[in-house]
Amino acid sequence: MSTKTKEPFKVGIAGLGTVGVGVVKILETNQDLIAKRVGRPIEIISVTASSKDKDRGIDLSSYEWIDTIGDMVSDQSLDCFIECIGGSEGAVKEAVETALGNSLHVVTANKALVAHHGVHLAQLAKKNGVTLAYEAAIAGGIPIVKTLKEGLAANNIHKVFGILNGTCNYILTNMEKTGRDFSEVLTEAQEKGYAEADPSFDVDGIDAAHKLALLGALAFGVEPDFEALSIEGIRQISAADISVAKEMGYRIKLLGITKMQDGMYMESVEPCFVPLESAIAGIDDVFNAVLTEGDFVGQTLMQGRGAGQGPTASSIVADIIDLAKGYHPEPFGKPVDQLQSVQWRDNNEISTSCYVRLKVKDETGVIAQITDKLGHSDVSIDSFIQRGHEDDGSASVFILTHETVFSNARNALKAVEELDCVIDKPLLLRIEKI
Amino acid sequence: MSTKTKEPFKVGIAGLGTVGVGVVKILETNQDLIAKRVGRPIEIISVTASSKDKDRGIDLSSYEWIDTIGDMVSDQSLDCFIECIGGSEGAVKEAVETALGNSLHVVTANKALVAHHGVHLAQLAKKNGVTLAYEAAIAGGIPIVKTLKEGLAANNIHKVFGILNGTCNYILTNMEKTGRDFSEVLTEAQEKGYAEADPSFDVDGIDAAHKLALLGALAFGVEPDFEALSIEGIRQISAADISVAKEMGYRIKLLGITKMQDGMYMESVEPCFVPLESAIAGIDDVFNAVLTEGDFVGQTLMQGRGAGQGPTASSIVADIIDLAKGYHPEPFGKPVDQLQSVQWRDNNEISTSCYVRLKVKDETGVIAQITDKLGHSDVSIDSFIQRGHEDDGSASVFILTHETVFSNARNALKAVEELDCVIDKPLLLRIEKI
Repeated sequence: MSTKTKEPFKVGIAGLGTVGVGVVKILETNQDLIAKRVGRPIEIISVTASSKDKDRGIDLSSYEWIDTIGDMVSDQSLDCFIECIGGSEGAVKEAVETALGNSLHVVTANKALVAHHGVHLAQLAKKNGVTLAYEAAIAGGIPIVKTLKEGLAANNIHKVFGILNGTCNYILTNMEKTGRDFSEVLTEAQEKGYAEADPSFDVDGIDAAHKLALLGALAFGVEPDFEALSIEGIRQISAADISVAKEMGYRIKLLGITKMQDGMYMESVEPCFVPLESAIAGIDDVFNAVLTEGDFVGQTLMQGRGAGQGPTASSIVADIIDLAKGYHPEPFGKPVDQLQSVQWRDNNEISTSCYVRLKVKDETGVIAQITDKLGHSDVSIDSFIQRGHEDDGSASVFILTHETVFSNARNALKAVEELDCVIDKPLLLRIEKI
Repeated sequence: MSTKTKEPFKVGIAGLGTVGVGVVKILETNQDLIAKRVGRPIEIISVTASSKDKDRGIDLSSYEWIDTIGDMVSDQSLDCFIECIGGSEGAVKEAVETALGNSLHVVTANKALVAHHGVHLAQLAKKNGVTLAYEAAIAGGIPIVKTLKEGLAANNIHKVFGILNGTCNYILTNMEKTGRDFSEVLTEAQEKGYAEADPSFDVDGIDAAHKLALLGALAFGVEPDFEALSIEGIRQISAADISVAKEMGYRIKLLGITKMQDGMYMESVEPCFVPLESAIAGIDDVFNAVLTEGDFVGQTLMQGRGAGQGPTASSIVADIIDLAKGYHPEPFGKPVDQLQSVQWRDNNEISTSCYVRLKVKDETGVIAQITDKLGHSDVSIDSFIQRGHEDDGSASVFILTHETVFSNARNALKAVEELDCVIDKPLLLRIEKI
C-alpha cells in the first residue's frame, strides 16, 4: 500500500525549547524515512510556545502558530498532542487532561507529570480510547520504557537500577578526573550547560527519582509512587571519598534502584559504591545506563545519552511512530485498572556492606571508641584507611563494613556521631552489589 | 476488560531442545504475569520434536503431542507456530512456509532461515495477513530487533556493530585471561558446553554473519544479503596477538559491522582491534553487545546474554506477547515490498589503521625490506614491536599502521608475504574506531 493513500498522522507541538525544536527537526529531516517505516506521513499541524518571535534557529512558518496550549488541545482534528513544556501541575497538566479528554493521544518527556499523575492520566486516556506515551521521560535516547514493557515482557523483573541523571554523573566523573570538590565541578558543569543555574533538581536526586518511580511501576506492573521514594543527592560527596573509593576498588555513582525481594518493593535514589570492574562503573560523563534483571533473561544493560536535544526528541518521535502505526501500548505495560497500589520500602531493610567517612580528633583510642559503637549495632569493620593529620588536629577515617542491615549502620553512625572524638557529620553510603 | 473474557492466544511449539523447552518453561512459570500484560492468556496447544520419549526435565503431558511439524502447521486452530528446530532449508523451511500459508504467525530464533529467506517469508506472511518475528535470532535476550525497528525508529541509522557470537567472545576473553592459544581454549570451551563439537559455525564467523545480515537489513530498511558478507573468523588469532594488542592499548574482538557511508552499504564479520577503554572492549565471556549510531540519538549500547535457554526463550516469548496483543510489526521494520535490494561492499574500501603480525627471519635489513614494500602501497608504520629470537632463528614483528585504505594494506601484505625474509602467512586485522 502506498503511503500516499493513507491519511497523515497529525500532531501539534507545545513547547519549543531544546526538546520541542528537536522534535520538529527530526520530523523534518527524517520525514520520508519515517513515513516509510510508519506506512503514512507524520505531519506537524500546529505549534505553540510562550513567545512567537523568539529565534529558535528553525523555520516554523509552515506550521500554524497557536497562541495558547488550551487552544491547541481543543483542536480535535489533531491525532496527537506533543507536550514539550514540562512541569507537573497547572496549565500543562490541564492541557494534557484536556487533550486526552478530547481523544488526542499524548506524547511527553515530562517525567514529573507522569511520576505524579501517571495513573490518573492513563485512566483518562483509556476512558477516551487513546494513550499516553513517555519514552523520553526516562534516560533520554535509551528506549528503556519499550524494553521493559515489550522487549523483556516475558520476564518477571526483579531489579532495575541505573544512572538516571547525566548532570550528577558528569559531576562525579569530573570530580574523579580532576580531584576537585563538588562545588568547583558543579560551577564548571553550569558553565558548560550541563547543570542548571539552580542545580538542586538534579544534584539532590529529584530528577532521578521521578524517573525511578516510573521504572518501578513499569518493572513490577504497579502504580508509580514518587512520594514513597527515599532520595539522597550527591552534594555531600567529597573528592576524598572518590579517591578512597578507587583505592578500595570502587567508584561512586548516583544510582536509582528499584527491586522486589521477599515480596517487598523497594526504591531509592542514593550515591553508592559500585565495583570498579562493573559495567555501571564505566558509564562516564553525561551518559545514562539502565540495568535490568529478569528471571529468564538475566541481566541486560542499556546505555546511551540521557538528555539533550537529539536523544530526547528521538524517543518522543519513536512514541509518535508507534501511535501513527496504530499501535497503542498501555502506558504502564498492562491495563491501568490492573495496576496495584503497593507498599514501597526504602533502603533501610537492605542487607548491605557500607562505606563510612569520619572526621575525628587525631588522638589515641579513637578507633577503639568507634569500633565499639559500631559493634553495639552489629556493624563490623572489613577494612579501614586513616588519612593524614590536618592542621586543625583532625584526621579522616574511611571504613568499609561487613554486610549488615542498613538501618543498623544508620543507628551505629548516630551513636558514633555523638562521640566527643568525632568532628562533623559522618558520611554513610551503601555498597551496591552488581 | 477481564482477561477471562478474551480467547487464549494458541501456540504450537516445534523443537524441544534447549530453546523450545525454555519457551515452555517461561509460558508456564510466568503464565499469569504474561496474561495480565497481554490482556489474554497464551496457551500452548501442541508440541512436536523428533523423539517423544526423551526426558526433557519438564512435564509435557498437558499438551497435545504431534508427530510431525507438517501436521502441526496444518492445524489452523493455532494462532502461532513457534519454530525452535533450526536449519535454513528442508523440512523446517517448508513448515514455516506452510504455517504462513495457513495464516499462522511464525516466531523463530532461526537466524540462518531468516538471513537466507527472510524476504520471501516476509512476503508470504504479508500475503496471508500474518507476520514473522525473530527477536531471538540476534543477540539472544537483548531486544535489538525491537530497538532498531521501534525504539530508534526516528533515526537515520548509519552504523550498527557488535559482539554477536558468545562462543568466540568466550574464547578470546579466555585466551587473554590465561595466555593460552586458540586451540587449547577452544577445547576447554567445548568441555564447558560453550562451543559445539564442530565449532566451525561459530569460530569461522558464520553465526555472527547470519545475525549481521539481519541487523543490516533492519538498520537500513533493505533486504538482508548473507551472500554479500565478507566473513573472517578467529582461528588465526594467537596468544601473542592478544598480548601485543593489550600492550598497544587494544583488545581483539570478533565484530559484526554494518554501516552506511557515502551512500555505500558495508557489512563484514572480522576480528578487530578495539580501544581497551571502549565499552565494547569490556564485554567479556559469553556476553553479546550491539552498538547503534543514529543521526539524532547518537550511540546506544545494549548488552546481555547472547545465547542460552533463558535469554533466547525470553525473546521468543516477547515476540509471542506482541502478537497476542494484536500488534503485528513488519518483519524488517517497514513494508516488505519497500525493502530495496542494495549493493553491499566488503571492508576493502574502508579507510582504517591496521595491525600486522609477521614471522620473519631474524637477520639484518628485514624491517627495511618490509617498510619498503608497505610504502609502495601507501601504507606507513605508526609503531612496531619486535619480539625475541626463536630457536628456529625467526622473530615476530607486530606493526600498527597509519590510516590507509584497507585494500592497500591487503595488497601490501601480499607483497610482503613474498619476501624471502618472511616466514608463514602474515596476519592483518583492522583497528575499528569506536
